Amino acid sequence: MRALVKVAQAPGLELQNVPVPIPGPGDVIVRVAATSLCGTDYHIYRWDEWAQGRIHPPRIIGHEMCGEVVDLGPGVSSVTIGDYVAAESHLTCGVCFQCRTGNAHVCKNYRILGVDLDGSYAEYVRLPARVLWNTSRDIPPELACLQEPLGNAVHAALAEDITGQSVLITGCGPTGLFATAVARTAGAGLLIASDISDYRLALAKQLGADHVVKAGSGDGDVIERLTDGQGVDVALEMSGNPTAIHTAFRFVKNGGRVTLFGIPEAPVSFDMTNEIIFKGIRVFGITGRKLFQTWYRLAGLFKAGLNIMPVVTHTLPLERFAEGFDLIAKGQCGKIVLLP
Amino acid sequence: MRALVKVAQAPGLELQNVPVPIPGPGDVIVRVAATSLCGTDYHIYRWDEWAQGRIHPPRIIGHEMCGEVVDLGPGVSSVTIGDYVAAESHLTCGVCFQCRTGNAHVCKNYRILGVDLDGSYAEYVRLPARVLWNTSRDIPPELACLQEPLGNAVHAALAEDITGQSVLITGCGPTGLFATAVARTAGAGLLIASDISDYRLALAKQLGADHVVKAGSGDGDVIERLTDGQGVDVALEMSGNPTAIHTAFRFVKNGGRVTLFGIPEAPVSFDMTNEIIFKGIRVFGITGRKLFQTWYRLAGLFKAGLNIMPVVTHTLPLERFAEGFDLIAKGQCGKIVLLP
Amino acid sequence: MRALVKVAQAPGLELQNVPVPIPGPGDVIVRVAATSLCGTDYHIYRWDEWAQGRIHPPRIIGHEMCGEVVDLGPGVSSVTIGDYVAAESHLTCGVCFQCRTGNAHVCKNYRILGVDLDGSYAEYVRLPARVLWNTSRDIPPELACLQEPLGNAVHAALAEDITGQSVLITGCGPTGLFATAVARTAGAGLLIASDISDYRLALAKQLGADHVVKAGSGDGDVIERLTDGQGVDVALEMSGNPTAIHTAFRFVKNGGRVTLFGIPEAPVSFDMTNEIIFKGIRVFGITGRKLFQTWYRLAGLFKAGLNIMPVVTHTLPLERFAEGFDLIAKGQCGKIVLLP
Amino acid sequence: MRALVKVAQAPGLELQNVPVPIPGPGDVIVRVAATSLCGTDYHIYRWDEWAQGRIHPPRIIGHEMCGEVVDLGPGVSSVTIGDYVAAESHLTCGVCFQCRTGNAHVCKNYRILGVDLDGSYAEYVRLPARVLWNTSRDIPPELACLQEPLGNAVHAALAEDITGQSVLITGCGPTGLFATAVARTAGAGLLIASDISDYRLALAKQLGADHVVKAGSGDGDVIERLTDGQGVDVALEMSGNPTAIHTAFRFVKNGGRVTLFGIPEAPVSFDMTNEIIFKGIRVFGITGRKLFQTWYRLAGLFKAGLNIMPVVTHTLPLERFAEGFDLIAKGQCGKIVLLP
Repeated sequence: MRALVKVAQAPGLELQNVPVPIPGPGDVIVRVAATSLCGTDYHIYRWDEWAQGRIHPPRIIGHEMCGEVVDLGPGVSSVTIGDYVAAESHLTCGVCFQCRTGNAHVCKNYRILGVDLDGSYAEYVRLPARVLWNTSRDIPPELACLQEPLGNAVHAALAEDITGQSVLITGCGPTGLFATAVARTAGAGLLIASDISDYRLALAKQLGADHVVKAGSGDGDVIERLTDGQGVDVALEMSGNPTAIHTAFRFVKNGGRVTLFGIPEAPVSFDMTNEIIFKGIRVFGITGRKLFQTWYRLAGLFKAGLNIMPVVTHTLPLERFAEGFDLIAKGQCGKIVLLP
Repeated sequence: MRALVKVAQAPGLELQNVPVPIPGPGDVIVRVAATSLCGTDYHIYRWDEWAQGRIHPPRIIGHEMCGEVVDLGPGVSSVTIGDYVAAESHLTCGVCFQCRTGNAHVCKNYRILGVDLDGSYAEYVRLPARVLWNTSRDIPPELACLQEPLGNAVHAALAEDITGQSVLITGCGPTGLFATAVARTAGAGLLIASDISDYRLALAKQLGADHVVKAGSGDGDVIERLTDGQGVDVALEMSGNPTAIHTAFRFVKNGGRVTLFGIPEAPVSFDMTNEIIFKGIRVFGITGRKLFQTWYRLAGLFKAGLNIMPVVTHTLPLERFAEGFDLIAKGQCGKIVLLP
Repeated sequence: MRALVKVAQAPGLELQNVPVPIPGPGDVIVRVAATSLCGTDYHIYRWDEWAQGRIHPPRIIGHEMCGEVVDLGPGVSSVTIGDYVAAESHLTCGVCFQCRTGNAHVCKNYRILGVDLDGSYAEYVRLPARVLWNTSRDIPPELACLQEPLGNAVHAALAEDITGQSVLITGCGPTGLFATAVARTAGAGLLIASDISDYRLALAKQLGADHVVKAGSGDGDVIERLTDGQGVDVALEMSGNPTAIHTAFRFVKNGGRVTLFGIPEAPVSFDMTNEIIFKGIRVFGITGRKLFQTWYRLAGLFKAGLNIMPVVTHTLPLERFAEGFDLIAKGQCGKIVLLP
Repeated sequence: MRALVKVAQAPGLELQNVPVPIPGPGDVIVRVAATSLCGTDYHIYRWDEWAQGRIHPPRIIGHEMCGEVVDLGPGVSSVTIGDYVAAESHLTCGVCFQCRTGNAHVCKNYRILGVDLDGSYAEYVRLPARVLWNTSRDIPPELACLQEPLGNAVHAALAEDITGQSVLITGCGPTGLFATAVARTAGAGLLIASDISDYRLALAKQLGADHVVKAGSGDGDVIERLTDGQGVDVALEMSGNPTAIHTAFRFVKNGGRVTLFGIPEAPVSFDMTNEIIFKGIRVFGITGRKLFQTWYRLAGLFKAGLNIMPVVTHTLPLERFAEGFDLIAKGQCGKIVLLP
């Protein structure tokens, strides 16, 4: 089969012909219908410091995917051949404290598809049956493959009830855009999105933001005015940018909620007294997806009309992956989907 | 001023000319722009057993209203003349355990507007400033006066997060219809409404129900099929009908939530073992509105696009109140608004 | 090995010699150190209607146990030989909605140890490794075997935070007694326990109840006085008795919490309006133990000083099981532990 | 009456004779039985930068107190002469968003007793009736006056259920010591307290800490060992010290809870990625007390046996206030109570 392989400890990926994987006990083989590019994949492609410490070539990468079950290993009964599935990309250990108490998304021992084992940038992928998610055929592959990153946004936005609440979303990368759509579908009240990119702000508007604010000098005055000086009930920090982080904490109301999802590249200098303690706020660190509450929640959101189609700005055949990574480098894209 | 007065311990109401009320300390006079008919008012009109035990004529009735502030008593600073307001109809004591711990809606000593003191079926009404709710002028009087009963539905539907959840609403009277619209706006997944009345089911459909089910023989099979045998995450019991109550408990999933809002007329025989305990569910008794969380939440829902206009089936001048009560008796209406 | 076997569709149990079980894949063999009598076992012993419909002889019964791991089947890595363990008695399916969303305790397909498969009234028992709970050697076998039923009490009492709250416990059978000890250790404020049995009330007092109330005529006046007419924040209904159920709902404060754990034998006539809705309360149906939050919580409670020793009123060798069931029949016991 | 007055914009306080205050509408005069020293008072005494910007002499300071009601202003019905009361020191506005939604403790407009109006370092103090808290005579004045700061610890420790949870408390100043006692009474499991002061660690041990850890080099190894490398469920940061803050975040488990109460003097450099986001934790900023849930909770804790007596290390007559502030400067004290 064709697959994108990190062949050496160096930048780039190579399109290779490799054997179709064989299912072990509890495993399933899925024919990949669509698989999307994630920031993590871009780190591996560029071979940055994080990737150098984590990836051991040769490795087929990719972890956002959907497809059809075509083969079952011994002992699999939870799915059948022909099922249309996506996959939870975090393979959790099942026995640590976190796994046994409803917090498997922060399992101490989890492995990641396309990072610690071969991934989905290929015609076929091998997966443990327990991470598969049966998906409605109403959802086309270009969207079904996005359920994993979309789940991050669901987890972040709905860490607490958002219905009827005023919301500020700082950062309109793909997950921020997804969060905008989720908040809109969930009946958020005033919904403000901010970013430095006009391209992304235009997408945020399409996804349901009431107002978009260009991050930079004077953005605080705009938000102050849009919220009548009251701030917002909920701030979703999706950028990891230190300035945006402070904006989120500045504008959350006393007694409100901040969700931290975006990953800062370095430590952030933080005024805990005035940004957290005296405001009496709740701060949630969010990573991954609740297994499997987030997935069920997402299925319900699709039924409720969640529309993320505008985020899919590009669809490319597998072999044109390099074009995709170039678009990410330029920031001129939402989500890019590869079709194997 | 003109007012609808319960003049004697007998059925009916009388349109009278009475003095405009004078504000005491902390009070406000509101010129009523719209005021709506509630089941409670109908009980008083008919002079049923409950009314006989509770109402002491002469009494101006009515408690769902909106209007404009026209006079302020001493010490009022939270509103000003010209403000467009609705009112929380429960006048809480402020000093009981419930009032001091965030549960004023179940205050042990509360008094009700139009029941324990003169109400809003009049050109003017006197209200303590602390129960007023400043309302956006974007909301016309026919809707603004409905915020009090709509708040019941917000409180009932959103007692826990409903976004992405499957929901069964049993009972499509006005509050059930409101709950349907609220659940839809809040991003509920599958949304099923049931009632015995085709008239009301048609309204439920307009308000966003995915499926409406005629209560009666065979309704269980329909719900079973619509939910793929899985039941619903949330059941909102808005009817008070014993059969509907059992339907709600039957179809809630293990681990799910039932909200009880509808008032049964008599005790209900209840299989606690199988309807509650072995299902491991949460049951919430809901009455009134959280002061003032529900009101803020509702304001956010309006911003999110909540549209309850189809529920307002009739608008009448104050003097045609008897027509309104006739429509309620026949069940051929949603909400009826009086314009003084 | 010796084992207590239900040999026929009739009352009684028989002490037999049977083969020691062989572990299959994922299984473990545990040498039973102690195993306790539960109401369920008594139902099976008496061969009542429920037992007749559920039990298929021959069957070794018993599901509350602890012991030492002596053999491992293929693929077991989460425990090792020599581990001191108790067991979650509910064998959940792992793939239903409830299992995948943190509610495995209400799994739609669970099987029960000693009911649907051979149990722990024996020298050895076979168990799937995933239900084992490593237990501190500080806890002697007579207590370690009680963690399963004690977990029910932990789940019931701590369904919400109980610290500093006033609590009424109706029913002082073993689980009610456990709940009394748990509430005391958790820092409950005023703690009242009621029952019809003086024997059990004396135990409740030993386990930390501030006041014990003999159920029957006049008990309401006593509770009224003890709570200064304010009622309690939390009512734990552990009896299943209809009168006690109404006592629980009567005395819970507006805005309070009722946990239903005791199983009524028949439907209960229930005034939903005044017992739930107008009180604005939360009602929780509780069964089983959260997997494995309850078990971790319990381990913490032992560290905090939880002492349930007074509940263990009798310890008997396996062969004297009939004496144990006689004591249960007479109600003159707390928990009875068998030593194989 | 005698009172401690900040007479000028300079360090120190002066014992003066001033008129007994007169109650206005809604006010009450309380004869102060005991009043305690707080860090805030020490800031004012020293006349540091914060005090210079906030305090407008002349001002009687002091805000932690208890005493007896001796006079009522017009319109007071919630307390009567002779009542034994403590006081919530935050005078909230009652009309802001926070006050109307159950978060009055983070009111946007609150005023503080002894800071923005005359306080309790005096024989008599004037207070609005609504901030008074009726206290059981079982609690002696030296403890009753401490309910305000003790409430901070209750709020911090019990922001979420702590029963059966492992807890690390960083910082054993008075509020950290109170939190230790609260966690112990609430049935915390493993309870570890850390501080740099041996004096304070000895107090922490008396108040119920299982282990005390001297902050400094190697403390991480000790905590690692005490928690078997698993970390703690809950970290209560009560010091405001940057090193302690990082210790709290380092040792909280993935999926756990950090409560921030201690006030850092300057911004803290913070690795959000690894300290919050990838851990999937909840962080609560805590200030003040929930009105009045925390006070009720505290009353329940006293019933449950909460004993904070060891924290009261010194009791002095009002005129020896300077000795008290000297002890605070040296850190050789728990709480110091003044008797007017």
